[in-house]
Amino acid sequence: MTDTAVAATSFVEKLEAARRASVRLATTKTDLKNSGLRAIADAVVAESDRIIEANDLDLANGRENGLSVGLQDRLRLTPARLVGLAEAVGEIVALTDPVGQVVRGSSLPNGVGLTQVRVPFGVIGAIYEARPNVTIDIAALALKSGNAVVLRGGSAAENTNRVLVEVIQTALSSVGLPVEAVQTIDEYGRDGAKQLMRARGLVDVLIPRGSADLINAVVAESTVPVIETGAGVVHVYLDESADETMAVEIVHNAKVQRPSVCNALETLLVHESSAPRLLPPVLSRLRESGVTIHADERASAIFADVVPATEQDWATEYMSLDVAVRVVDDLDAAMDHIRRYSTHHTESIITNDVAHAERFLAEVDSAVVMVNASTRFTDGGEFGFGAEVGISTQKLHARGPMGLGELTSTKWVVRGSGQVRG
Amino acid sequence: MTDTAVAATSFVEKLEAARRASVRLATTKTDLKNSGLRAIADAVVAESDRIIEANDLDLANGRENGLSVGLQDRLRLTPARLVGLAEAVGEIVALTDPVGQVVRGSSLPNGVGLTQVRVPFGVIGAIYEARPNVTIDIAALALKSGNAVVLRGGSAAENTNRVLVEVIQTALSSVGLPVEAVQTIDEYGRDGAKQLMRARGLVDVLIPRGSADLINAVVAESTVPVIETGAGVVHVYLDESADETMAVEIVHNAKVQRPSVCNALETLLVHESSAPRLLPPVLSRLRESGVTIHADERASAIFADVVPATEQDWATEYMSLDVAVRVVDDLDAAMDHIRRYSTHHTESIITNDVAHAERFLAEVDSAVVMVNASTRFTDGGEFGFGAEVGISTQKLHARGPMGLGELTSTKWVVRGSGQVRG
Repeated sequence: MTDTAVAATSFVEKLEAARRASVRLATTKTDLKNSGLRAIADAVVAESDRIIEANDLDLANGRENGLSVGLQDRLRLTPARLVGLAEAVGEIVALTDPVGQVVRGSSLPNGVGLTQVRVPFGVIGAIYEARPNVTIDIAALALKSGNAVVLRGGSAAENTNRVLVEVIQTALSSVGLPVEAVQTIDEYGRDGAKQLMRARGLVDVLIPRGSADLINAVVAESTVPVIETGAGVVHVYLDESADETMAVEIVHNAKVQRPSVCNALETLLVHESSAPRLLPPVLSRLRESGVTIHADERASAIFADVVPATEQDWATEYMSLDVAVRVVDDLDAAMDHIRRYSTHHTESIITNDVAHAERFLAEVDSAVVMVNASTRFTDGGEFGFGAEVGISTQKLHARGPMGLGELTSTKWVVRGSGQVRG
Repeated sequence: MTDTAVAATSFVEKLEAARRASVRLATTKTDLKNSGLRAIADAVVAESDRIIEANDLDLANGRENGLSVGLQDRLRLTPARLVGLAEAVGEIVALTDPVGQVVRGSSLPNGVGLTQVRVPFGVIGAIYEARPNVTIDIAALALKSGNAVVLRGGSAAENTNRVLVEVIQTALSSVGLPVEAVQTIDEYGRDGAKQLMRARGLVDVLIPRGSADLINAVVAESTVPVIETGAGVVHVYLDESADETMAVEIVHNAKVQRPSVCNALETLLVHESSAPRLLPPVLSRLRESGVTIHADERASAIFADVVPATEQDWATEYMSLDVAVRVVDDLDAAMDHIRRYSTHHTESIITNDVAHAERFLAEVDSAVVMVNASTRFTDGGEFGFGAEVGISTQKLHARGPMGLGELTSTKWVVRGSGQVRG
């Protein structure tokens, strides 16, 4: 037997062990899962030194391999960050367990009782980049929703992740939960990621987290069903009747409050008849906050000293203090622009016209559509879900902010008393 | 420009036309969609001669190419079958339109109103084999749920499908609906099917209907999200305390009423202590109805003159008057067998023991789990959904019988009055 064959066998064995763990987790009571979460939170803090030692090793390797300063920062764990991660795990304890929730039900005419209940997926695969916080985050969300998880983190965080998984497994074991509920396959490298994407029947769902490139690669390769999270080229449209204060405040909040996240504003569209009234106060306020304005010709004619917008700007998720601005003829032109350039994440209309608001809400095909509200509200926490698994911009299974419920499937339970079909 | 390039361009144009049609359909009122359905139902009957002429051509080609008698029968349309198909379209008129249904909603503490509403997917791709009834069926279900559909039927039904799509498009046009709501890409052959599977961004969801081979090929190739329907290796387990009459009637109904469908019984498991009591009456009743019994050694010792069951039998979806029978040590052994061989469609326990019933319902990981009921109830019609798109044995998006609601996605609608995030 070659080395590869040995590795392949034990890879499958790992997934089979995850399956067995998932069978136990599926019927594990909420109390015990919460004990596991508390044990993980405690262990992450108690084992800080060991985790940071492994993280230092990854950081040293990263510097040697020319890892960018930004990526080094995402990779870095500090005692304060570990406390923050532990607190986030603790917060999951307080959330409602989705498993067993009844989605709908009825009594059939023949007396058969029918209920659709939430059940865990089973085994979740997670493929992500060198952000060790995701290791703890996904492990905790999977545990609360009754799923086993198989993790493939970025190789740049391999030492950190190995220690984190050991710490998590020890915590699980301490409360009597199966250690195979959380496993890493980092030791199989890129080949392991590929095998995971092809592990149909062994893995129930795959969640890629990271760059568009990573997500596209997983979608193209995977035979396991994928839940995608996507980028946000997010639009705000200022309609003819938009209130000036509302326009200024919402645009500023959407762009400036946290520009590096997916629900931040990227492109501002303005009705031509309101542009002379609204652009000066809206853009002045943005400029005061250090925003670079990329404007089309019609907007530049109203508000001076801007960067000329190019075709590329309309399709760009800046994730920085930049905004693209375009004057449009009317609502239809605004919606045409959105249809063409949006990533279908979040779009908001600022208007006082009921008919326009309703058309925008009905016709714009995005995960979240808004009237007179900041796009920054597209968030699991803001929506009241507690933890957020990510924001789905696809249309299957989950769309928009995903909470614990979106980490479950459903099952139909049929209770009869001897009924047969006529 | 080469011929291939020309074909590729117009293929994409077709999908873009489908997208435009889907934008209109998404906000088309139920009344108009129902008028379209009635027009389709009428046209299928009025144009019977033309449809059957095209179908005769496909059948003649099929005979020449050695198409099996069974496949010829699936391909064949008769005046009576067309009337049946038209009636099925008419029944969809009466069903509730899922578009616009509010799934959940709340008022956030800051006064923002939040509702999650059902919206069409947009463009559905359907890939299926030479069953022209699917052409009408999918077109009608897609229309009612506000989706445009792009059809790739089997090449053996190409002439029939071309005429059917023409008939449907004329009907759509007669009520003022966009003809591009229903299109075929049969003229692009196998290459068209491949392009459809890779048309990410143009097609929102792909539904393969047909054999396991077809479904597996689509899953392996597609970058468009797929909704799968699967085979049914369906189990009934007779527990220690099973009532004899209930066991006899449910097993007979599950196996004999319609053996060729996916919710029919394939493997009967019996607790060893109840086997001597239950196997003789249960299997006698099956044998009287012409069922061939494939039994393991322990079952053969109780009920004579059977075919010895092989390992292969446990994994077979017979779809015929055959049943596999196995005596098991206890409930755990029954669930182990199910975990190993089930296709996760439907399993039923016959028992009078509450604890066993609850364990079976909780621990068996199938789309539908039952106690004291016939597996034949796993059906959209029986569940009260009206039309059935298929039965999903996967865990993402939809599991179990899929109705019109399962042909929709959701969208979050946020209504504010100027709120920004703090």
